[in-house]
Amino acid sequence: MATSEPRATGADQDPNTANLRPPSGTYEYAWMHGCTRKLGMKICGFLQKNNSLEERGRLAGQKNLLSCDNSDSESRFRRTEIDFSNLFARDLLPAKNGEDPTIQFLLEIVDILTNYIKKTFDRSTKVLDFHHPHQLLEGMEGFNLELSDQPESLEQILVDCRDTLKYGVRTGHPRFFNQLSSGLDIIGLAGEWLTSTANTNMFTYEIAPVFVLMEQLTLKKMRELIGWPGGEGDGLFSPGGAISNMYSVMIARYKYFPEVKTKGMSAAPRLVLFTSEHSHYSIKKAGAALGFGTDNVILLSTDERGRVIPADLEAKIIDAKQKGYVPLFVNATAGSTVYGAFDPINEIADICEKYNLWLHVDGAWGGGLLMSRKHRHKLSGVERANSVTWNPHKMMGVPLQCSAILVREKGILAGCNSMCAGYLFQPDKQYDVTYDTGDKAIQCGRHVDIFKFWLMWKAKGTVGFEQHIDKCLDLSQYLYNKIKNREGFQMVFNGVPQHTNVCFWYIPRSLRGMPDSDERLEKLHRVAPKIKAMMMESGTTMVGYQPQGNKVNFFRMVVSNPAVTQSDIDFLIGEIERLGNDL
Amino acid sequence: MATSEPRATGADQDPNTANLRPPSGTYEYAWMHGCTRKLGMKICGFLQKNNSLEERGRLAGQKNLLSCDNSDSESRFRRTEIDFSNLFARDLLPAKNGEDPTIQFLLEIVDILTNYIKKTFDRSTKVLDFHHPHQLLEGMEGFNLELSDQPESLEQILVDCRDTLKYGVRTGHPRFFNQLSSGLDIIGLAGEWLTSTANTNMFTYEIAPVFVLMEQLTLKKMRELIGWPGGEGDGLFSPGGAISNMYSVMIARYKYFPEVKTKGMSAAPRLVLFTSEHSHYSIKKAGAALGFGTDNVILLSTDERGRVIPADLEAKIIDAKQKGYVPLFVNATAGSTVYGAFDPINEIADICEKYNLWLHVDGAWGGGLLMSRKHRHKLSGVERANSVTWNPHKMMGVPLQCSAILVREKGILAGCNSMCAGYLFQPDKQYDVTYDTGDKAIQCGRHVDIFKFWLMWKAKGTVGFEQHIDKCLDLSQYLYNKIKNREGFQMVFNGVPQHTNVCFWYIPRSLRGMPDSDERLEKLHRVAPKIKAMMMESGTTMVGYQPQGNKVNFFRMVVSNPAVTQSDIDFLIGEIERLGNDL
Repeated sequence: MATSEPRATGADQDPNTANLRPPSGTYEYAWMHGCTRKLGMKICGFLQKNNSLEERGRLAGQKNLLSCDNSDSESRFRRTEIDFSNLFARDLLPAKNGEDPTIQFLLEIVDILTNYIKKTFDRSTKVLDFHHPHQLLEGMEGFNLELSDQPESLEQILVDCRDTLKYGVRTGHPRFFNQLSSGLDIIGLAGEWLTSTANTNMFTYEIAPVFVLMEQLTLKKMRELIGWPGGEGDGLFSPGGAISNMYSVMIARYKYFPEVKTKGMSAAPRLVLFTSEHSHYSIKKAGAALGFGTDNVILLSTDERGRVIPADLEAKIIDAKQKGYVPLFVNATAGSTVYGAFDPINEIADICEKYNLWLHVDGAWGGGLLMSRKHRHKLSGVERANSVTWNPHKMMGVPLQCSAILVREKGILAGCNSMCAGYLFQPDKQYDVTYDTGDKAIQCGRHVDIFKFWLMWKAKGTVGFEQHIDKCLDLSQYLYNKIKNREGFQMVFNGVPQHTNVCFWYIPRSLRGMPDSDERLEKLHRVAPKIKAMMMESGTTMVGYQPQGNKVNFFRMVVSNPAVTQSDIDFLIGEIERLGNDL
Repeated sequence: MATSEPRATGADQDPNTANLRPPSGTYEYAWMHGCTRKLGMKICGFLQKNNSLEERGRLAGQKNLLSCDNSDSESRFRRTEIDFSNLFARDLLPAKNGEDPTIQFLLEIVDILTNYIKKTFDRSTKVLDFHHPHQLLEGMEGFNLELSDQPESLEQILVDCRDTLKYGVRTGHPRFFNQLSSGLDIIGLAGEWLTSTANTNMFTYEIAPVFVLMEQLTLKKMRELIGWPGGEGDGLFSPGGAISNMYSVMIARYKYFPEVKTKGMSAAPRLVLFTSEHSHYSIKKAGAALGFGTDNVILLSTDERGRVIPADLEAKIIDAKQKGYVPLFVNATAGSTVYGAFDPINEIADICEKYNLWLHVDGAWGGGLLMSRKHRHKLSGVERANSVTWNPHKMMGVPLQCSAILVREKGILAGCNSMCAGYLFQPDKQYDVTYDTGDKAIQCGRHVDIFKFWLMWKAKGTVGFEQHIDKCLDLSQYLYNKIKNREGFQMVFNGVPQHTNVCFWYIPRSLRGMPDSDERLEKLHRVAPKIKAMMMESGTTMVGYQPQGNKVNFFRMVVSNPAVTQSDIDFLIGEIERLGNDL
C-alpha cells in the first residue's frame, strides 16, 4: 500500500501504545513547517510506493526495512486542500495512494459534522426545515435522492451529506421535545464513531473481545442497580425496547413450557399475557408475532394517573383461569410512554408470586431512574422481576440504538434461543467459549451497541447519569408548576408527574368559555395537530401529541436532553400560546 | 450558549446552504493568522456570552442582532492544544463555553480513528492482538473495563478509546477472512459517522424525513434488481438477516392465516416450514420464536455442493400433507453460509406454485450478486419469490448493520405488524402519513441503517458494486485454482465455487499417507482449530472453520473485502502451510 505518511517500524510496535500526545507545541510546529515536511514525505512516499516490501512482510513482528520516521509511530492528521471534484470512491483506501485522499475526505466529513453539532446546540438554529415528502422527492435545490448506475464525485458526496443534514431534524436541539430519545451526547457520539470504525459484530468473543467483555460488565452493573443479588443473571443488548420486550415473552414461555421451542404453541395450553392499557404496543406486537395472538394479551385497567390497578390484574387472572386459559406473564410498565406512569411493581409482584407468573418490568423509558437516589423508589420492587427492559438510549441520552434485556435466571436466554450453529460457535476454540454471546440472541449478526454506553458511563460515572436524570425531572416539574394553573392550559391528569412526561391540553381563547359538549371536544381534538403543524412549518420547536383512551388529542411534553434549560420550557409555553391563541 | 466561533447571522441563513468550500487559500490563510483571528473571536465570544439574546430570539427567521462574522457562516475546524486531563464530559456541549473543548475532543477522537484506519489497510499491522478473556478482565497495561461511580477525565477517555481499538480485531484488514462481513468502506464509514451525528429514528417521516425517503427509493431499486415489475412491493431495513428471515415467516403466516395475529397459533392447523439442511440457523430460530416449533422446520437434503434437491422438497411436502400437516413456507438459500451454495430457485418456485406455498429467498449472503451481470444468473428465479432477505452488510461491504427484507405484495407488512399506536402514528398529521414506516416493523425505534448504504450507492454507482463483487469472486476462483491440486490441500466439494466460499481441509504431512479411518478423521478434525489458534496468537490472519454434517472441521475461506489482493490469498495459503505442516 502506498502512503505519504511516516510509518511505524513494524507490527510489534503497535501505534496504540504510543504516548497520548507529542510534546506540547509539536503540532503547531508541524503546521508551520508543513511545506518542507510534505516534500520530505513525498520523497518517502515515492520510495515506499515503489517497494512491495509490505506485501512480502509476512510474519507478524517482522520489521519493515524501510522506515521514514521512527519517532512518530502515530501521526496527527494534517489537513490539506484537495479537489474532490475529480476524485471518486475508488480513489480512497484501499486504492494505491488512497491514504491521503481518504484522510482528507474524512476530515471534510468531520468539518460538516462539527458544524452541524455546533448549530444543533445553538438556539438561533431551527429545529427542522420542514418539507413534504413530494417536495423532497422532487429534489430540493438539486438534492437528488435517486440512485444511479454511475458513481458521483466525492465533491457531490460531500454536498449530499450537507443536504441530508440540512433537511433532517435536529434531535439534539434544546427545543426538540418530540420523542423519548433526544439530545446529542458528545461522548456517546465519539463512541459511535469509534464503533463504526471498528465495524464488528457481537456474536463471538473472537471478533469482538473488548466489546463482549464491556457488555458483560455493563449488564452486571445494570443488574446490580436493579438489585439482583451480586448482579447475577443474564442479558443482552438488543435492537430496541420492542425486541427486548419480545425476548421477555419468549423466555417466560420457555421457562414454563420449554417444549414450545420444538413442538410449537400447540404443545401449550391457551396462554395469556397481561399488560396495562397504557403499556407500550410492543407487548401486543410480541403477542402477535410469537403466536399467542393479540386476543390473549389482556389489557389491565389503570387509575387516573395511568398506573395499573393491581386488583384488576388479580380479577383478570382469576377470570382467565376460570375460562380455562393459562396466565403466563405480566408486564409492569416503569414509565409509560404517554403518561410516564410507574405501575406499582411490588403489588404486582405479590400477585405474580401468588399465581406463579413471570414478571417482566418494561423500564425502557423509566429504567434510567434506577440511577437516581432521589427517584429510584418509583421502581421499588423491580428486584422481584424475572426480566427487565431498560433502554439507555431514552432517559440516559445514549445515542440510538441502546436497549438491554436483563434476566434474573442465568442460562435461560441460551436455553430459549440456542441452535448451536457449528460455523460460528465451535466448541473447540482456544478460548473460553462461554464468552460467545451469539447463541443467546434471536439475531445472528448483532450490532455493537455497548461501546458508546460504556464510554459514557466511564466519562460521567454513575453520578453523572444521576445528575442528568434529576435535572430532567426537575425541569418537568418546573413545566408542571408553570402551566397547572395557567390560563389556557389544562392538565390531563393532576399531580406532579412521576417521570418527565407532562400531559396537557392547550385551550384556545375561542374554546375557553364553551361548555363541555361533543362539539367542544371535536374542536379541542383538532387544536394540538394544528399547533404542531405550525410549529413544524416554522421549525422553532417540536413536541408530541396523541389521543389516549377517550381523551382527545393532548400534548405530551418529555425532557431527556441535557441541553434543555428552563428558558426552553418557557419558550415552548410561549410558542404554544403564540400559535394557538387564536385558533 | 457561549461560543468562540463566528456565527451565522440567523436561522434563516442555514449554514448548510453555504458554498461547499471557501475560496482556495482561505483555509491556509486562516491558519497563518490564527493568533489575531483568535483574539478577535475571544472578544466576540465574550460579547456573545454576556448577552442572552439567543435565549430570547424566539421566532425562526428572526436575526441575531449580534453577529461577529457575516461572511463565514460555516467555519472550518481549527485544531488547538487542549489539556484534557482536567476536562470532563460535563465540560463539553451543552456546557457553557463547551464548544471549543467539544470540537477539540472530537478531533482527538478523529485522530485516533484515522490512525486506526491507516493501520487497518497496512499489511505490516497485525489483524489482532489476541488475549484471553481473563487477561483483558484483569486489565491490560492499565486498561480497566470496570465502570465506576465517579467520572474519568477526557484524557482517560481518549486512552480508553485507543485501548479499545488496540485489543480489538481489525475486520477491515486485507487478511481478515473470518466472517461474511469484512472490509472497511470509507464512504460507508462516513455515512455511519453522519448517521450517528443525526441520531434519529426511522419510525416516522416526522423525525427522519430524508432517511425515510432514502429507504423507500433504495428498497425500490433493490426490488427492481430482484425483478419485481416496476420495483413494486414493500420492505424494510431490519437489524440483521436473522430478523429479516423472521419477518418472512411472519408475513407468510399472516398471508395464509391472518387470524393468527389475533387468535394465536391455535387458530391455525399444524404448519410446517421447509429449508435446506445447509441453510442459516435463523430459519429454525424463527420457527422456535414464532411458535411453530423447530420440529416443524423440515430440513431438505442437498446435493454434494450443498444445493437443495427439489425432488426432496416435493417428497417432503407430500409426506407432510399425508400426515395432516399444512406446508406453509419454503426458504431457498441464495448463498449458503458455509458452502456458498445457491439453491435452484426456479425449480423450487415451480413446486411452491404447485402447492401454493410462500417462497422466501434468503439472499443475506448472495443477494449482492444481483448487482453483477456476470453472476446474477445464480439467483435466477428470485423474481418469483414472495419475499427476499438481502444484507448489503455482507457481500456489498456496507458497514454493519444493513439488512433488508423485501416483500412482493404491498401492504402485507403493515397488515401483519400494525398496532396503530396513537402516540406515534397520528392520522391527523400535516403530511402524508403513509410515509411513516414504524407500524410495519416489529421494532418501535429503528436505527437508521439506510444512509451509509445510500451514500455508498451514490458514490460507487451500481457499477461500483458490480466491480467489487466480480473482483471478490475472481479472487475466490484464484484461491480455488491454487489449492485444488496442491499438496496438503483437499477440497470439501469439487468444482468452481458458486460464491466466494472456498471450503477445504489442510492435511498436515503426518496425515498425508494415512489411510481413511476414524483415527485419521479425529486427527484431521483437530487440525483446523489448532491452525486457527496459532493464527490468532500470531495475529497474522483469520479464517473460519467448522464441521458440516458428517464432515470434520474444515476451513471456510470467504472474500468480501475490497482490500484483498491475490497476494493476500497467497499469504493465507502460505500461513496455513507454515503453521500446519508439522502438526
